[in-house]
Amino acid sequence: MINVGIVGGTGYTGVELLRLLAQHPHARVRAVSSRTEAGTPVADYFPSLRGVVDVEFRAPDDADLGGCDVVFYATPNGTAMEGVRPLLDNGVKVIDLSADFRIKDVALWSDWYNMEHSSPDLVAEAVYGLPEINRDAIAKARLIANPGCYPTAVTLGFLPLVEGGHVDASKLIADTKSGVSGAGRKSSTKLLYAESSDSLVAYNVSGHRHRPEISQTLSLAAGGDVGLTFVPHLTPMIRGIHATLYADLTDPSIDVQKLFESRYEAEPFVDVMPTGSHPDTRSVRGANTCRIACHRPGDGNTVVILAVEDNLVKGAAGQAIQNMNIMCGFDESAGLAVVPLVP
Amino acid sequence: MINVGIVGGTGYTGVELLRLLAQHPHARVRAVSSRTEAGTPVADYFPSLRGVVDVEFRAPDDADLGGCDVVFYATPNGTAMEGVRPLLDNGVKVIDLSADFRIKDVALWSDWYNMEHSSPDLVAEAVYGLPEINRDAIAKARLIANPGCYPTAVTLGFLPLVEGGHVDASKLIADTKSGVSGAGRKSSTKLLYAESSDSLVAYNVSGHRHRPEISQTLSLAAGGDVGLTFVPHLTPMIRGIHATLYADLTDPSIDVQKLFESRYEAEPFVDVMPTGSHPDTRSVRGANTCRIACHRPGDGNTVVILAVEDNLVKGAAGQAIQNMNIMCGFDESAGLAVVPLVP
Amino acid sequence: MINVGIVGGTGYTGVELLRLLAQHPHARVRAVSSRTEAGTPVADYFPSLRGVVDVEFRAPDDADLGGCDVVFYATPNGTAMEGVRPLLDNGVKVIDLSADFRIKDVALWSDWYNMEHSSPDLVAEAVYGLPEINRDAIAKARLIANPGCYPTAVTLGFLPLVEGGHVDASKLIADTKSGVSGAGRKSSTKLLYAESSDSLVAYNVSGHRHRPEISQTLSLAAGGDVGLTFVPHLTPMIRGIHATLYADLTDPSIDVQKLFESRYEAEPFVDVMPTGSHPDTRSVRGANTCRIACHRPGDGNTVVILAVEDNLVKGAAGQAIQNMNIMCGFDESAGLAVVPLVP
Amino acid sequence: MINVGIVGGTGYTGVELLRLLAQHPHARVRAVSSRTEAGTPVADYFPSLRGVVDVEFRAPDDADLGGCDVVFYATPNGTAMEGVRPLLDNGVKVIDLSADFRIKDVALWSDWYNMEHSSPDLVAEAVYGLPEINRDAIAKARLIANPGCYPTAVTLGFLPLVEGGHVDASKLIADTKSGVSGAGRKSSTKLLYAESSDSLVAYNVSGHRHRPEISQTLSLAAGGDVGLTFVPHLTPMIRGIHATLYADLTDPSIDVQKLFESRYEAEPFVDVMPTGSHPDTRSVRGANTCRIACHRPGDGNTVVILAVEDNLVKGAAGQAIQNMNIMCGFDESAGLAVVPLVP
Repeated sequence: MINVGIVGGTGYTGVELLRLLAQHPHARVRAVSSRTEAGTPVADYFPSLRGVVDVEFRAPDDADLGGCDVVFYATPNGTAMEGVRPLLDNGVKVIDLSADFRIKDVALWSDWYNMEHSSPDLVAEAVYGLPEINRDAIAKARLIANPGCYPTAVTLGFLPLVEGGHVDASKLIADTKSGVSGAGRKSSTKLLYAESSDSLVAYNVSGHRHRPEISQTLSLAAGGDVGLTFVPHLTPMIRGIHATLYADLTDPSIDVQKLFESRYEAEPFVDVMPTGSHPDTRSVRGANTCRIACHRPGDGNTVVILAVEDNLVKGAAGQAIQNMNIMCGFDESAGLAVVPLVP
Repeated sequence: MINVGIVGGTGYTGVELLRLLAQHPHARVRAVSSRTEAGTPVADYFPSLRGVVDVEFRAPDDADLGGCDVVFYATPNGTAMEGVRPLLDNGVKVIDLSADFRIKDVALWSDWYNMEHSSPDLVAEAVYGLPEINRDAIAKARLIANPGCYPTAVTLGFLPLVEGGHVDASKLIADTKSGVSGAGRKSSTKLLYAESSDSLVAYNVSGHRHRPEISQTLSLAAGGDVGLTFVPHLTPMIRGIHATLYADLTDPSIDVQKLFESRYEAEPFVDVMPTGSHPDTRSVRGANTCRIACHRPGDGNTVVILAVEDNLVKGAAGQAIQNMNIMCGFDESAGLAVVPLVP
Repeated sequence: MINVGIVGGTGYTGVELLRLLAQHPHARVRAVSSRTEAGTPVADYFPSLRGVVDVEFRAPDDADLGGCDVVFYATPNGTAMEGVRPLLDNGVKVIDLSADFRIKDVALWSDWYNMEHSSPDLVAEAVYGLPEINRDAIAKARLIANPGCYPTAVTLGFLPLVEGGHVDASKLIADTKSGVSGAGRKSSTKLLYAESSDSLVAYNVSGHRHRPEISQTLSLAAGGDVGLTFVPHLTPMIRGIHATLYADLTDPSIDVQKLFESRYEAEPFVDVMPTGSHPDTRSVRGANTCRIACHRPGDGNTVVILAVEDNLVKGAAGQAIQNMNIMCGFDESAGLAVVPLVP
Repeated sequence: MINVGIVGGTGYTGVELLRLLAQHPHARVRAVSSRTEAGTPVADYFPSLRGVVDVEFRAPDDADLGGCDVVFYATPNGTAMEGVRPLLDNGVKVIDLSADFRIKDVALWSDWYNMEHSSPDLVAEAVYGLPEINRDAIAKARLIANPGCYPTAVTLGFLPLVEGGHVDASKLIADTKSGVSGAGRKSSTKLLYAESSDSLVAYNVSGHRHRPEISQTLSLAAGGDVGLTFVPHLTPMIRGIHATLYADLTDPSIDVQKLFESRYEAEPFVDVMPTGSHPDTRSVRGANTCRIACHRPGDGNTVVILAVEDNLVKGAAGQAIQNMNIMCGFDESAGLAVVPLVP
């Protein structure tokens, strides 16, 4: 049984880590930090955790994170890069759910996140925590950059096509739809129920932070630059990402279905559905699964990939625990056998 | 490891039983019957169960229910009363999630459910499966009438008050609000998203089938007739029941909070919150908990009890599994340690 | 054509006034004030008003409100009491949608609203703008206290019963459910889509500001004190209030249906539905109607009244315009013939 | 004042026609037919229309449709083609909101709609009722094929680009998201609140009936074949379509914003927003507006057009009334000055 700490436990990825870790056979939550809620029992703050979690929030300096085996950062961007070094030096494994260590090009990161990076060397060291491409490196890492929610779904959806050069990688289109929890637990009027329900809107069409993250991974997979048009939409659901991906086949004779089935055959958390399927985000609600379906309308050259995930699980906290399992040598699925909540 | 069968697996209580049983340490689903879907793999019908459930639907006669240790009926009213006798004769324990065996007065049942009862003797035998009042009888029973969703919340909310004669039992008011899954997986226009979202409506104000069920239990607890006004409302949420209960104290000196805490102290699935709390249905989504808070506005004689549950869990499938655990001598919480899904 | 001003145009009642006034035959919006958005065209702030409203927000001092015939205050509590006097002195009619002038007992008001009242004399002068009881006084008034959203539905639902002494007024129960827009356009985490959707919660059970407001009106109607238990609930819908009202008849021989039909026969915005009806909030969405149905379960002494309204229309902006029409001698329904939006 | 008839008044386009026509200055509803509800007052069936509509449903043969000036068909596909001829012969103008007369290639229509067409000559005669391209023909027509909901948004979004040959018309992508009312008032389990809320799913990716309709119109505009990938999604909202359109510019020097502004300058119901805007479907809820924004991410060759509409208004009933206004020589906006419902 390892001891786990969570830095920034009052947001949605924080409470999701707590939900999932409560059922983990080999890990227990020892410390949860929060500047604003120090001293409050976690279960008072999140009544859903009454009888489940019995620790209280501690101030970051008071939380004895250094005594943990693994620490998750579930903080706003810019926090982890300031705090992880002493933990790493102490032998603590760190999994950062923010964007601080995701983009290798530090200047590019600074452009998109509007701040200087304080720990470029750790960016270089950090392993991008997408097990489907980096499992071995994750196993050996001490610092994980847990992927963003959109990047997980979009990358897994494009990956088999791009790796083999089966599509024109200069013309990828990712039309993505996210539930509102993806925006975090922010008091923003556009995230109010009265505004975001019964409505749908695209945002950041001119540029979104997740585009460089996706491009970085796909470029590595493609062995060269990719051209990606990425359009995110805010949709009236709590959880869920639906990525609808468009690409042009370079070799029309390829069997796309087989390509995907073969690529993900051994993956415990990627489910390639039968040809013609339409996965709904509901079918993965609460679970660590990315479900994918392949289409080729009119048997033309355009392939349409549908990929769904729960943005808080495979798109955040679940994937983080999957990474922890790999890092700690546990069964990769330990604590992640949560069945989706339907209806 | 016992073998479990589910009769009528295509509705919401069916899929919820499958979700919960998938994680049960001592039970495995051996047979799931459906007249309409015989031959279809369950996981094709419910993609959320891909990789989780590997049986297929069988026609009822073909499902070898007699070879199961426990069979759940998740069928429309009127089905279980026709089918359970041979199973019971075979030594199978039966838990009926429909209303067939809930009301002891068979004539009253017939009035409310518009059919003759085919097995009055089994009504007499059946144990009402509310563990908080009938735990010992449940342990010895071979046929359980699993309580309705509203009755579970309303009964647990009124019980401590009525048992001790602390309120005027002739003037109870239960104003209840349910998510739409409580109406079942019916193709009714009023249950369509386009009609039931962004709207709220009372229904069956003149009389609802759950009123006699609640009255029966509370009368037993009160040791005499109770007078109950019961008003259900359909609300735009998937899951959840919120019961707001009103009663007049007969003894204003009673400490209502203590009364509830003491009554439910040993109950694993009833959570009495601190004074002044307002439980939200979200805090129990997906979990087998009934959360209760007590209020006495202006310190007057009127007590207001708030009780929330997930209608498909503590109000149906979860309670059914709790009953199974008791009947089979398992830990009462086995397989039910599901943490609520928040957000 | 009169000139109308709106103070505080960035909230939900503000945008609703703008929606309704855009279609008013005798009024045009000349000035809309906002401290934070001064200089922004209203239609930039609310794109739904593009091509409909062509004024821009002005700072309050700069908005020439004194040149308007009627000014609406759609501001947080405490603002109108500071600002209306010069307008009134200037001959401007003022309709305040906040709570500043609703409660005649200024000390009681201070207790509930946590501030001193700066203009007690105006409280004394203000007419409570519920046309169904105060039509004549409204016609002569220069200052209107527009009723709260809950008070409108609850008062209209209890009024016929209380006026005639037909119920025990010491034991009234109002169980009310509101959409989230009733809480205003506040950046509060509990109002986020991710938190308030798929959930239902009671709030302020120990005491809510609208209880003294309702009690004041009903006491006047009853000719004596009333005892009211008032429990509000936050429900996952944008607009809509459903009040479920319980009272005990003093004279069981009364025909409740006829009582209501007769009381509201001449009212253009109160619709008494046929016996046995269940009005849904959807049926009044966007319209200035309060729809009411009367029930008497089991023909007992307890009467159950269902009253629905759109909290932003009959519960706020629509009623304010109805008051304006009365004050200005227009047809009371002018500009209010909006058909509910269904589905 | 003209007399209007509606065939098939119990669905969503039917009730929406009734809502909008109730406020029309030059038209009154004289007849509403329904086979199943004959004899029921319309306002009993749709309580939102109490006090607004005072006719009752009549059986189609009994409804005196021949005595109307204009008849709307709001029926399932296959009904209008059987019924309109006698009306046309009688001099009645007919506007069909179903798909019966939309596709000129009758064989293609039969393929997609799975039935023989009974009136190919009327298909040839019918005018496709998109005023932005066919205003003059509509004015002279006696039979209008009212466009589908998706085709209206997608066509208006692509039109300026395709008309001038500014994009590669062989590679158009339309990723579209619709609220559930677009599927009609069908009792389908996938349209239940419990299933379609908090979820998002693509459907008919291999082929949707609206694709040939869109292609037909765009091909005419382009002066040649177009290649369109069309992916619709079901999203948890009542009303609203959001079309996200992708195309490659053939001439990168074009000013897309100006192109759109100029094309739609005189259009009363197309609103081109400023550069960089993100229209939300809420901003057109209940109104006859299609709001469009143009983007060119990274100033590359890929143009992204966002187009939103209310599928029941500009996508159905509102556009039908717009067509009626044109056919009858009324102001094109008569009865359509409905302000969107926000929040």
